[in-house]
Amino acid sequence: MKIELAEKYGFCFGVKRAIKIAEENKNSSTYGPLIHNSKEIERLNLDFNVSLTEDLNDFNTGDKAVIRTHGIPKNELAKLYDESVDVIDATCPFVTKPQQICEEMSEEGYSIVIFGDEKHPEIRGVKSYAKHGAYVVTDVSDLKSLKLGDRIAVVAQTTRRAEDYLQITNFLIPRHKEVRVFNTICNATFENQDAARKLSREADVMIVIGGKNSSNTKQLYSIAVENCSNSYHIECEDDLESKWFKDKKLCGISAGASTPDWIIQKVIDKIENIS
Amino acid sequence: MKIELAEKYGFCFGVKRAIKIAEENKNSSTYGPLIHNSKEIERLNLDFNVSLTEDLNDFNTGDKAVIRTHGIPKNELAKLYDESVDVIDATCPFVTKPQQICEEMSEEGYSIVIFGDEKHPEIRGVKSYAKHGAYVVTDVSDLKSLKLGDRIAVVAQTTRRAEDYLQITNFLIPRHKEVRVFNTICNATFENQDAARKLSREADVMIVIGGKNSSNTKQLYSIAVENCSNSYHIECEDDLESKWFKDKKLCGISAGASTPDWIIQKVIDKIENIS
Repeated sequence: MKIELAEKYGFCFGVKRAIKIAEENKNSSTYGPLIHNSKEIERLNLDFNVSLTEDLNDFNTGDKAVIRTHGIPKNELAKLYDESVDVIDATCPFVTKPQQICEEMSEEGYSIVIFGDEKHPEIRGVKSYAKHGAYVVTDVSDLKSLKLGDRIAVVAQTTRRAEDYLQITNFLIPRHKEVRVFNTICNATFENQDAARKLSREADVMIVIGGKNSSNTKQLYSIAVENCSNSYHIECEDDLESKWFKDKKLCGISAGASTPDWIIQKVIDKIENIS
Repeated sequence: MKIELAEKYGFCFGVKRAIKIAEENKNSSTYGPLIHNSKEIERLNLDFNVSLTEDLNDFNTGDKAVIRTHGIPKNELAKLYDESVDVIDATCPFVTKPQQICEEMSEEGYSIVIFGDEKHPEIRGVKSYAKHGAYVVTDVSDLKSLKLGDRIAVVAQTTRRAEDYLQITNFLIPRHKEVRVFNTICNATFENQDAARKLSREADVMIVIGGKNSSNTKQLYSIAVENCSNSYHIECEDDLESKWFKDKKLCGISAGASTPDWIIQKVIDKIENIS
């Protein structure tokens, strides 16, 4: 069986940047998981003593708090600064962008629609910047009951699929005077998705590696399984099952933006041993 | 054979308003056809001595110039004012809107895309307000070769079909940082189109009445013929052919926004005599 990596996969700019920031700040603590990959977080803890703090109140004056790639709500960031915590901001710049857009557009009187998962930390952060609230939607059915104004600004979670975003904008455009659509889906998402789509059309088994709570990995898996029914979302090599590869000719591999190369390599090594 | 009018058809707000303005300004002259209906223009000439002037240079100081519903290019309007022509503006307010948007958005640095017919007077007028030029497109193939910036403002000809407009915005949104979509398709267009769509699904012959150069009538016809292959675009009762109605049960009728009721009535009378 041949093993082939997608043309684009794994670590994006924002994740690489955040890990570098964490490595440069030994003995700090991230507020919430830095990225959605528990193995990489373990590594940062073991090698750089970067710990994980879940409760905002556990940070005290002078503590080093690293802000996760997904960003945090505006009031929580303000609280850290107010209490003179040493804030090290590793928010992905592609996440800062929709935060700024929400703030500016709500100041200009637009109704704000966010396409994404209300519970995802990125979206909880982005939403907090909309001064008069925002509607978070995952599909058109969520839009139907909303009372929106004539002028609407729309942003998307950075890891969403463009074709799904267009469903939202297609519903809004004929129904409102102005729909200001910000393409906040990040390039790495576009590129990893395109490459996964292409490879999954050829492969007869697809392995998508990434945290189970990683939004972008879930999107990659959804694209893979559309084209290759033998697609599997795994976190690490321990999740592999040998039966998946029986009589297969081409195993395609993709990985989420928060999946480190060392995990991908372990997966490849194990698949090579299985097949 | 039963004859049924669409639930909404014919004269829109802007056309009614323009005709009222013309009727109130006897002995004036319109610069270009007031509306796209030559029979109604003849009536205004006969009953109110409102003539038609095709050449801008034929207007002199003190002349009464009525501006057509479709609007005119900005520099031509300025020339009329400069020469102290008595300008009576019958531009439809729904056309003034995209003119203003083009002006404001080009001032704010957006690339301007206009979805419509480059040769149509409405679009020649709208485009003239874009201070640094605008791209006029009729379908996605026109967009592919354009060099657009990151921030795009899009307007549509007031008489276009919403579903066609979405093809344009769907191409732009994933490819640019911000696409500011203005829904400039007017409500009368939406309503006449919806009603024509509904009726043409039931009728076995559809008659769409309006000027051959009327954009919105052409759109109504395109919707009718999608659902009812026996659809005909006529200007007046003289264009009717008796064979169209042979063995038919339901004749649906729609009419463009510039088609007066008296023409529609003559068409109905003649169809009743035929069938």
